Amino acid sequence: MKVLLSKKTGNFYYWLGNGDYHTKEGFVTEEDLNSGNNIVKTNTGKEFLIFNSNNYDRRNKIKRGAQLITPKDLGYIASRTGLDRNCVVVEAGSGSGAATIFFSGIVKFVHTFEIVESHYEIVKKNLNFIGCDNVDIVLGDINENLSNLPDADLLFLDMPEPQNLLEKNLNFLKSGSYIVCYLPSITQIQVLTQLLEKRDDYYLEESTEVILRHWKVWGRVARPMHRKEIDHTAFLVFIRKI
Amino acid sequence: MKVLLSKKTGNFYYWLGNGDYHTKEGFVTEEDLNSGNNIVKTNTGKEFLIFNSNNYDRRNKIKRGAQLITPKDLGYIASRTGLDRNCVVVEAGSGSGAATIFFSGIVKFVHTFEIVESHYEIVKKNLNFIGCDNVDIVLGDINENLSNLPDADLLFLDMPEPQNLLEKNLNFLKSGSYIVCYLPSITQIQVLTQLLEKRDDYYLEESTEVILRHWKVWGRVARPMHRKEIDHTAFLVFIRKI
Amino acid sequence: MKVLLSKKTGNFYYWLGNGDYHTKEGFVTEEDLNSGNNIVKTNTGKEFLIFNSNNYDRRNKIKRGAQLITPKDLGYIASRTGLDRNCVVVEAGSGSGAATIFFSGIVKFVHTFEIVESHYEIVKKNLNFIGCDNVDIVLGDINENLSNLPDADLLFLDMPEPQNLLEKNLNFLKSGSYIVCYLPSITQIQVLTQLLEKRDDYYLEESTEVILRHWKVWGRVARPMHRKEIDHTAFLVFIRKI
Amino acid sequence: MKVLLSKKTGNFYYWLGNGDYHTKEGFVTEEDLNSGNNIVKTNTGKEFLIFNSNNYDRRNKIKRGAQLITPKDLGYIASRTGLDRNCVVVEAGSGSGAATIFFSGIVKFVHTFEIVESHYEIVKKNLNFIGCDNVDIVLGDINENLSNLPDADLLFLDMPEPQNLLEKNLNFLKSGSYIVCYLPSITQIQVLTQLLEKRDDYYLEESTEVILRHWKVWGRVARPMHRKEIDHTAFLVFIRKI
Repeated sequence: MKVLLSKKTGNFYYWLGNGDYHTKEGFVTEEDLNSGNNIVKTNTGKEFLIFNSNNYDRRNKIKRGAQLITPKDLGYIASRTGLDRNCVVVEAGSGSGAATIFFSGIVKFVHTFEIVESHYEIVKKNLNFIGCDNVDIVLGDINENLSNLPDADLLFLDMPEPQNLLEKNLNFLKSGSYIVCYLPSITQIQVLTQLLEKRDDYYLEESTEVILRHWKVWGRVARPMHRKEIDHTAFLVFIRKI
Repeated sequence: MKVLLSKKTGNFYYWLGNGDYHTKEGFVTEEDLNSGNNIVKTNTGKEFLIFNSNNYDRRNKIKRGAQLITPKDLGYIASRTGLDRNCVVVEAGSGSGAATIFFSGIVKFVHTFEIVESHYEIVKKNLNFIGCDNVDIVLGDINENLSNLPDADLLFLDMPEPQNLLEKNLNFLKSGSYIVCYLPSITQIQVLTQLLEKRDDYYLEESTEVILRHWKVWGRVARPMHRKEIDHTAFLVFIRKI
Repeated sequence: MKVLLSKKTGNFYYWLGNGDYHTKEGFVTEEDLNSGNNIVKTNTGKEFLIFNSNNYDRRNKIKRGAQLITPKDLGYIASRTGLDRNCVVVEAGSGSGAATIFFSGIVKFVHTFEIVESHYEIVKKNLNFIGCDNVDIVLGDINENLSNLPDADLLFLDMPEPQNLLEKNLNFLKSGSYIVCYLPSITQIQVLTQLLEKRDDYYLEESTEVILRHWKVWGRVARPMHRKEIDHTAFLVFIRKI
Repeated sequence: MKVLLSKKTGNFYYWLGNGDYHTKEGFVTEEDLNSGNNIVKTNTGKEFLIFNSNNYDRRNKIKRGAQLITPKDLGYIASRTGLDRNCVVVEAGSGSGAATIFFSGIVKFVHTFEIVESHYEIVKKNLNFIGCDNVDIVLGDINENLSNLPDADLLFLDMPEPQNLLEKNLNFLKSGSYIVCYLPSITQIQVLTQLLEKRDDYYLEESTEVILRHWKVWGRVARPMHRKEIDHTAFLVFIRKI
C-alpha cells in the first residue's frame, strides 16, 4: 500500500498496489506509481507526494464497528504499564480491534474476548488485514473463560462495568501486573472505586485523561488549532494487581 | 525487585531482593518479603502491600543525567508512528536512555547516539540495569555516522536544532517512515519549519503536545488534581519521510 | 426581548417583543408570549420555556464584522486587571464591539478606536442596539490621538502589531495600569517581548491562554464534551505600566 | 499603596504609604518612594520598579479565611452572566469575600450571606479594607432570609449542596437571571442535576471548567510553564431561572 498526498489540497489517498489510481483530483498511472519517484502527477497535472504506507496508515484503514480506541490512549497505556515483547495481554472486549492490533505489534501474545458477534467478525477481518499472528480471539464472555487464561501482564477492559469482572479472583494476573479500564464517564470510575475500596488485592494507581493539543506552526503563524475534533474519549484507570 | 506500598502513607519502596528492607516506617524481614503474601508488616506494625515490580517500576529507577522523556510522550510516539517488533529506530541523543529503553522493549533494534560522555556512561549503565540487548549506543555525533545506518522506520531526535541534521539527505530512512522531533520550545519548531518549507522529501504531519490530567475519584470526591507537577515537557513534531 | 427555549430540540429563539413569533417548530401568539407563564405552546403543540433576555443574550445578538472576542477572554481581562466602575478603558481596535460593550457595562468610560470604516459602522450600530452611553468611538488611528486621551486604567489592544504603539510614550496610562494585548499567535508575543526587553516603563506580568472545558453531567453521564467548537482564540498578554 | 518590583529577584513588595520600606533586599526611603520616579534603589543598591497599586493588587492583599475564588473563575462568571452596573447579586456563602469584592466593583448591589462567624468577621474586614459601600453582609443562613431579598440578576452559590436551596421557590430571581454554582467535585453536580431534571423553572445552560495556561515567552524561549500551581479549582454550573 502506498500513500499519496495531494500538494494542493492536502488530501491523503491510499493505493492498494494494483492498477491505475483514480481520485477526484485526476488519475495516476500504475507505471508512475511504481516509478520510485517522490512526486507523481495526475493526468490533470496535479502533483502528489508518494511514499510507502506504514503501520499507522494501515491501522487507520481497518473497518470500524465499535468506536476505535485512539493512539493517544493506546500509547499511554503501553508506556505507563511498561508493555514489551515479553508481555501477555488479555483484553475484553475487542471492539473493532484497534487496541488488539496495537498490542499485538508490541507484545508476545494477546487474548481478546468479544461478546457481540458483529464486532467479532469485524475484528477477525481486521486482524487478518493487518496480519496479526499472535492473537487469540474468542467470541464469548471473559467471565466464563477465566480458568483458561495464561499468566498476564496487562488486563485491558473496554467494557461499561468492569467492576463485575474485578469482583472475581483474577488469579491469572501476575503480581504487580496492571488492569487498565477504559471508561468514558466519571460515573463509571465512581462505581469501580466502590469495589476497589473493599479489596486489598487491587491498588488504584492513577486515573487519567490523555489530551492532545495540535498546533499550527508554519510561516508567521504559531498557535494551537482553533477547534478540537476530539477532546475527550475516555478516562484511563490504572489498577495494580497485588 | 519487589514493590512495597505503605497503606498508611502511600509511599512506594523498592526492594532489590536481598536481605531485610529498612524504611523510615520500620523494617521488614527477608523472610516476610519472600513469603508470597500480599501484605507484610514492619517491626513497628505498619502494613505494606507487596507485589512484583514490572517494567514501569524498573524504568523509573534508572539513573538520571539529562531530563527523562516521560511516558506520556513516549507512548504517543510509539502509537502515532506505528512502532512494532519489526521496526528499526535511530535515536540522537540518548539523554538518560529513557526513550532508548522504551523503544528497545518494543522494536527490533535501536541505534542511539550521544555526544556528551557523562550522559553516554549513564545510558550504558541504564541499558545494562534494564538488560537491553538490542541497542547499539555510540559516543559521537550522528552527523558523522549517517552512511553506516540501517534502513530505519523512526528517527527520534531529542536535540536542540534538528534542522541541521534534516538539511542532509537522510537516505537510511525508509519511504513513509517518521522523523519525530522532541522540542521544548515553539521557537524551535519555527526554525525547523523554515527548512521543511523548502524540501519536498519531508512532510510535516503533526505538531502536538500530549497533556495528562490526573483525577482523584474516591469516595465522594471526583475532581482533577488541584496542581500539576508536570504540565509541559515538549512539543512533538511528526515529519514523514517521502 | 424574550428567550424561547424548545424543550424538544433545545433550540433557542429570541422574540423582540412585537407580534406573534414564528419558528420552524410552529408559531406562538403574542398573547401567550406576554402571558407571564414559564411555558408556552406553539400552534403545533411544541412546548417552549420562555424567560426574559439578559445582557448575555443581547450581547450574543450583536452584528459580527470582525471575529467577536469571547466571554472567556473578556471575563479574565476584567478580573485580572481589576476593572470596576471607577476605571477608564482605552481600546484599539473596536472589532465588532464585543469588548467595547462588555467594558462599557462595567467601567466609567470607554474610548475606542477603529480604523476600518465598515467595522466602525457595525460597532456604532451594536453600541446603539445595546444602549451604551459611556463610549466614545473614533474612526481613526489611535497613534494620531494619543495626546487627547484621558488618564486610563486599561489599554486593550486587539491589533496585529501592538509593539508599534508601545514604542511611543503612553503617558495617558496611569502608573500601575494595565496594557492587555490580544494576540492569536505566539509569533506576535515574541515580537512584542523584543520591545519590552528594552523598556523600563513596561513590565510583562503574564502571558496566558484561557481555556474552557464544557461538561455533560446529566443522568448517568459525567464527562467532558467529545469535541470543542472553540479551543484556541488568542493569547492574552498582561503588561504593567510603570 | 505602591507596588515595588525587584529587578533582580522579580519579587513583589507592597508599600502601604507611610515611612521607609524595609525588605530583605534592603530598605527604600520614604522620600524616594514618593519621588515619582519609575525606579528606586535600596540602601544596598538593588533596583526596584515602583508603580501605583490597582484593584488587582489590593484584592490580592485581603485576608484569607476560606479559600479565595480565583480571577479565572470570577471573570468568566461576570462575562458569561452579563453582569453590569445595573445588576443585583445575591451570594451565599461569602467565603473570604473575594467574589463579594469583585462583584461589588461591577454591579449595583451585592447581598451576601455567611454562616460561619469567623469567615463573616474576615469578610467584614476585607470589605472595609477595599472600601466597598454597596454590599450588605448577613451572618446567617440564606434559607431563612429568602423573603427579604430584592429582585436579583445573579445568585452565586459557593456552598457544598446548592440543591437544598434550589428546592425552594426562589422568586426573588428575575425571569432569565442566572444561578451559578461553584462546585469543586463532579459528584456535587451529579446531585444537583437530579433536582434540575425535575424542575421546569430551572434550565441547565452550561457546566464548565475555566483553565489557565501560563506561558513563558522571552528571548529564545516560547513554551508553556512546566508546572501548574493551580490547575483545578471548581466547576461552574450556569443555571437559568425561567
